[in-house]
Amino acid sequence: MATGLPAKLKPAARVAGQRQDVWSIVNEAAAASPKQPIVNMGQGFFGYNPPPFIIAAAKSALDRVDCNQYSPTKGRPRLKKAIADAYSPFWGRKLDPETEVTITTGANEGMLSAFMAFIEPGDEVVIFEPFFDQYISNIEMAGGKIVYVPMHPPQDGATKTSSAAEWTVDFNELEKAITPTTKMIVLNTPHNPVGKVYSKEELQRIGDLCVKHEVIILSDEVYDRLYYVPFTRIATLSPEIEQLTITVGSAGKNFYATGWRVGWLVGPAHLIQYVSAAHTRICYSSVSPLQEACAVGFEQAESEGFWDETVKEMKGKMTRFNEVWDELGLPYSDPEGGYFVMVNTKKIKLPENYPFPPHVASRPRDFKLAWFLIHEVGVAAIPPTEFYTEPNAWLAEDYMRFAVCKEDEVLETAKERLRGLKKYIQE
Amino acid sequence: MATGLPAKLKPAARVAGQRQDVWSIVNEAAAASPKQPIVNMGQGFFGYNPPPFIIAAAKSALDRVDCNQYSPTKGRPRLKKAIADAYSPFWGRKLDPETEVTITTGANEGMLSAFMAFIEPGDEVVIFEPFFDQYISNIEMAGGKIVYVPMHPPQDGATKTSSAAEWTVDFNELEKAITPTTKMIVLNTPHNPVGKVYSKEELQRIGDLCVKHEVIILSDEVYDRLYYVPFTRIATLSPEIEQLTITVGSAGKNFYATGWRVGWLVGPAHLIQYVSAAHTRICYSSVSPLQEACAVGFEQAESEGFWDETVKEMKGKMTRFNEVWDELGLPYSDPEGGYFVMVNTKKIKLPENYPFPPHVASRPRDFKLAWFLIHEVGVAAIPPTEFYTEPNAWLAEDYMRFAVCKEDEVLETAKERLRGLKKYIQE
Ligand SMILES: Cc1ncc(COP(=O)(O)O)c(C=O)c1O
Ligand SMILES: Cc1ncc(COP(=O)(O)O)c(C=O)c1O
Repeated sequence: MATGLPAKLKPAARVAGQRQDVWSIVNEAAAASPKQPIVNMGQGFFGYNPPPFIIAAAKSALDRVDCNQYSPTKGRPRLKKAIADAYSPFWGRKLDPETEVTITTGANEGMLSAFMAFIEPGDEVVIFEPFFDQYISNIEMAGGKIVYVPMHPPQDGATKTSSAAEWTVDFNELEKAITPTTKMIVLNTPHNPVGKVYSKEELQRIGDLCVKHEVIILSDEVYDRLYYVPFTRIATLSPEIEQLTITVGSAGKNFYATGWRVGWLVGPAHLIQYVSAAHTRICYSSVSPLQEACAVGFEQAESEGFWDETVKEMKGKMTRFNEVWDELGLPYSDPEGGYFVMVNTKKIKLPENYPFPPHVASRPRDFKLAWFLIHEVGVAAIPPTEFYTEPNAWLAEDYMRFAVCKEDEVLETAKERLRGLKKYIQE
Repeated sequence: MATGLPAKLKPAARVAGQRQDVWSIVNEAAAASPKQPIVNMGQGFFGYNPPPFIIAAAKSALDRVDCNQYSPTKGRPRLKKAIADAYSPFWGRKLDPETEVTITTGANEGMLSAFMAFIEPGDEVVIFEPFFDQYISNIEMAGGKIVYVPMHPPQDGATKTSSAAEWTVDFNELEKAITPTTKMIVLNTPHNPVGKVYSKEELQRIGDLCVKHEVIILSDEVYDRLYYVPFTRIATLSPEIEQLTITVGSAGKNFYATGWRVGWLVGPAHLIQYVSAAHTRICYSSVSPLQEACAVGFEQAESEGFWDETVKEMKGKMTRFNEVWDELGLPYSDPEGGYFVMVNTKKIKLPENYPFPPHVASRPRDFKLAWFLIHEVGVAAIPPTEFYTEPNAWLAEDYMRFAVCKEDEVLETAKERLRGLKKYIQE
């Protein structure tokens, strides 16, 4: 705060004095790099547009008066119905669009609404590391206390490519993390950044623990249309688990439109009603014309062959991009879902005395490597220790996260540049 | 909560057990009324579309990849610049789009972001009654304690139409409401529901008090393009006041697009930076293609003659609609701005023993009148005591709020129906 300003203008603790976040470090580094333009494989936005049938639906919604005005706080009836219909086959029963679905401003504000709906100050929330970073501030905003449980990387991750399934939860650690004040647990499958799709058995164990301890499950499934192995939704495992579970989805991820800010939560009426109430207090309602377009997206995705295509396309991008690691002999966690790949960079030897700026030099190795990649190779990626607490950050300091949701030619340019790493790699 | 559910699933106090809100009472009454279709002059959404040049801009944004993906958390550079340029003439200096403007998900989430940025639990926030109802839950979500100061209706409001300027603040009451723990005050001009545009002198007195007591001013100016008397922005009164003031705007209100959920806050960098930080934690970023369309809206509004047209059109609707009250001899507060009119219904005699449902019968007279209007006349309006605390609700129980932002033919239908009130009016 500038001097001379009244002391009473000071910000609340919840927004004051945070260290610089990974996104702005990476963006600033990219802007300052000599290697312009940088190939940006950092943030998980798409390098291409939503499919034409959804864009067309958005344009036609813009011509309708009701589609430009406030939607009901819980969302447009057409979108709620389309989502209920799309999720019903997984549940094996017809979901009620009026009581079991609510629309939010992206998955992000949807999850904040869920925390605001259930967390009283002091309640504990269990999350796995690495985590999607917004969970932290969202839980803290509701007054929750976060309890961290690390996912363990594959033991031979530095030497050998293996499935992202090899990132594992220690169930003893998980059970120990649950206390009488645990109110919620946050799951994420397919997982960002690890690329793991939790197996049915893992989900059953987590679900059983939550039933036993009466813990609400917030299952962040925003990458639910991008899976390369069988994908299970935890809510569908049993009625006891379903009764505790809120499932999160995102049009941004489903339809290649991260800037549309349409998300939803699906769950039993006794949970969803309070999520809706919180959402109403936060955003009032969500963007109308794009809700309508998303409704059309869900209605027509099957007949357009879109769900199959999205898997095929993304899997193709993943395979195309990861060739470069095979060439370089750098191991990675082969993703089971989503559009991120975690590459183990241990074999890359950073030049000694490389001039890292102080705010990078003070962070773990992966931040230095991200800086190095941007400045020497011209490719931006995300250092995953940002998604860990300090005691556990060492688990991921050799990894780097790349987003492959980009045009194929961009992936090829990235590969070409990354081949320049060869001279830094030590076997 | 249904019985048989684990006790630990209970919701947080912030969303639990609120009484039914006015919007759902009015909507349910409208759905159940024999007079279908109801003419809805309740909620303040527009009965017509944004102007063609803005719709066209939205459609063309939908064709651009970057406009469908995440925007920067503080908003799209083009929109921030367009807003800085549009506000600069009022400030008499060039506003800095990078530090003095931030984009939010409607004015609503913008104001929540401001409260989250500055309110610590226990901090006091002064608001005037009647208030925009979302202020309450937004302030409470941040842990703030609300202190209410009533606006006093015109003394002869029951017998005589007069300017909305006659609703007044008692400055002694205001000064008494400010204590050492007052952190913020919320202003709203042009005012919803009263239609008052605070005079320069009133704003100067409020501003002076805030400078004296170091209170942050959140000036909700979402109706800033709809004024029928000179309109002053409190931030522009002096550098001392500006330094304390955050000004709120809304594309929904400016461009007839309440469903677009684009809002913004303008103010000094030492305040805006924390609002942005809070917004990032709440919504991450706001809807991209419609931000781009709003940028075009601001860029072209002058040359399209839109700002002049919007005033002329709305003033025309106001005059057109209020004729019916002149005919009926019902006094109203003639609005100085915005699109709401407050009509004094004291002369309407409700039939004795009219069968009001219990949730309406237990509320003040205006709720009964709203119900009666919906069921007997087929016009929906909003009972303004919803926007008061209980001790002060009596001030407004003879009023009814009508939104005139509707097609002219809808206004004519409403007038035709409202003429049916004649037989209930007693001089
Ligand atoms: C795991 C996870 N959850 C939630 C989100 C947020 O989704 P949305 O853009 O719909 O808010 C993201 C976005 O990156 C994510 O990776
Ligand atoms: C006084 C006032 N402030 C804020 C808002 C919210 O505006 P937005 O729709 O941009 O969230 C409204 C909407 O009715 C309002 O009347």
